[in-house]
Amino acid sequence: MASNRQIVLAERPRYVIPTSRCFRLQDAPEPEVGDKGIVVETQWLGMEPYLLGKVKRAQGPAPIGLGEPMEGPGVGRVTASTDPRFAEGDLVTGMWQWADRARTTAHYVRKVPDSLQQKSHALGALGYTGFGAWLSVGELGAAQAGETVVVGAATGGLGQMIGQMAKIRGYRAVGLAGGGAKCEVATRDLGFDHCIDRHGNRHLEGQLREACQQGVDVYVDVVGGRLFHTVWQMLNRKARVVVAGLMSVYAMQGRPEAIDHSMSMLSDINTKRISVVGMVVFDHMSTLYSSFKQEMLGWLGSGQVKPLEHISNGLESAPEALQSVFEGRKLGKSVVQVMA
Amino acid sequence: MASNRQIVLAERPRYVIPTSRCFRLQDAPEPEVGDKGIVVETQWLGMEPYLLGKVKRAQGPAPIGLGEPMEGPGVGRVTASTDPRFAEGDLVTGMWQWADRARTTAHYVRKVPDSLQQKSHALGALGYTGFGAWLSVGELGAAQAGETVVVGAATGGLGQMIGQMAKIRGYRAVGLAGGGAKCEVATRDLGFDHCIDRHGNRHLEGQLREACQQGVDVYVDVVGGRLFHTVWQMLNRKARVVVAGLMSVYAMQGRPEAIDHSMSMLSDINTKRISVVGMVVFDHMSTLYSSFKQEMLGWLGSGQVKPLEHISNGLESAPEALQSVFEGRKLGKSVVQVMA
Repeated sequence: MASNRQIVLAERPRYVIPTSRCFRLQDAPEPEVGDKGIVVETQWLGMEPYLLGKVKRAQGPAPIGLGEPMEGPGVGRVTASTDPRFAEGDLVTGMWQWADRARTTAHYVRKVPDSLQQKSHALGALGYTGFGAWLSVGELGAAQAGETVVVGAATGGLGQMIGQMAKIRGYRAVGLAGGGAKCEVATRDLGFDHCIDRHGNRHLEGQLREACQQGVDVYVDVVGGRLFHTVWQMLNRKARVVVAGLMSVYAMQGRPEAIDHSMSMLSDINTKRISVVGMVVFDHMSTLYSSFKQEMLGWLGSGQVKPLEHISNGLESAPEALQSVFEGRKLGKSVVQVMA
Repeated sequence: MASNRQIVLAERPRYVIPTSRCFRLQDAPEPEVGDKGIVVETQWLGMEPYLLGKVKRAQGPAPIGLGEPMEGPGVGRVTASTDPRFAEGDLVTGMWQWADRARTTAHYVRKVPDSLQQKSHALGALGYTGFGAWLSVGELGAAQAGETVVVGAATGGLGQMIGQMAKIRGYRAVGLAGGGAKCEVATRDLGFDHCIDRHGNRHLEGQLREACQQGVDVYVDVVGGRLFHTVWQMLNRKARVVVAGLMSVYAMQGRPEAIDHSMSMLSDINTKRISVVGMVVFDHMSTLYSSFKQEMLGWLGSGQVKPLEHISNGLESAPEALQSVFEGRKLGKSVVQVMA
């Protein structure tokens, strides 16, 4: 067995986005299983926007100190366990350090279903991303057949699931994406009825109105920013806005001097009976994840949902893969294959 | 019987607030009951912020044309009826024109309960205002015993009910009001644990933090503006914000150039699981009004709720009374006594 390696946080992002220079690959001690512990051998790592919270200064639930190992969602094989709920050989998914082998505990992991063909889908379609999409259009957004759902980032992990679920649930999906190539994939492969280029498009508002002639019933956004207000203007009475993350806020330094939309938004919330809710997958894991898992495994098995992934190779590629998530350069859910 | 009089809209507000010069008192034809109609003799008129929507240009559900009679909530005696559900002599409350006598229909009115001592309370405590307060802290805000509820306008129609319900429901009520005299009334007579002067108070934020040491669980606002953001910063996880109207938006001309709070608010909605809902009494009349009425009649009968009213005299005083609502010059629910 090769010696263990890990990726540590070398410096914090200078200009908001974590670049590959923020991390360093180094040799690591072999993890010890200890009491009530699990050691996993990492096969896949999932890249998620919320990981920014771990590297930004004094932000997020558990920021990582300089020189400490980065951590995030992964898929791996159990190589040692002192917790009776897991045994050597189990394939699990959960949170642990970015390393060839790492220690975690039962609290952070769950087994990967045997019926899942492509194991990396445990991080995307069957992971927080897919669960978030399912919550956003189902439990929280309650998109009904015939309604129009707008998604701020059509080809991302969350957006592609919302597009593919449109055909199953019967709502119309309208996406926004950065660039014509992404838009083409969104409408050809990902179930979107329309996809509008958000990059430097002077006709964006008109095209969006054209695509949403009946107005917008559900708006799931992970981006925020100026575009948010454009979609907001098109919301129907009793529309539901699901805030599933805000890339533009993660990247925001202070509050912008601009037109203050907050009071007119509140006024619309009142007069148009709009509801605005935050979507945080962790709040719903214990209550709804098992229902979701059953439904999504069915869709994956039948081919109704075909996840689009961007695969990077090798533990050392993780920093670059994370940077790409924030730069929006890759298509589909970004995963890193650490070991075949 | 004296000849009939009515108040018509003479000009639209020039500087947002409708002043008394916007209206004109004039002789009016005697209303005819017609088919399925009711004629009422007006005893009381209720002044409500939402009436602004009727006089502003091209705003609100049913703007009133220039030269047309103003309309709003009232209490009156039925003098003629061709609707079998109402008979001459019934005391009713509902919507009709600002006039000594006016025609309305069963759709817009309901009977005033015999057990109600002070009939003008049908417009305040038992009307849209009281119902709105009950919905805001109950059905929508779900204020629990021990939680802290902040109200943007403590001595207004809505605020005073939320204060008085605090002692019944067991939550802590913290109010804001314009001026020391209002604040004194709020804490002495209206059930508020604390009331903070919002006018030119340089220590407002510190005083509010002092009054809300456990943070804010429910925030009911009818004002909006800069203060909104101050309270917003103090919201607890899972806080509920009830938008019951926005005086500062009604009075807003265009959107202010300022710091844009909208994206950071969305981010907080997500990370702190804040819910923001609009409160519109009309949405809940058919489902919840009767439960509310029963409860409020009990509180009024037992003296647990003692409505604070500002009474103006005579139909001709209505324009001035409406102006006062927007200028915040009067204490308590503003009503006009048209006829004893």
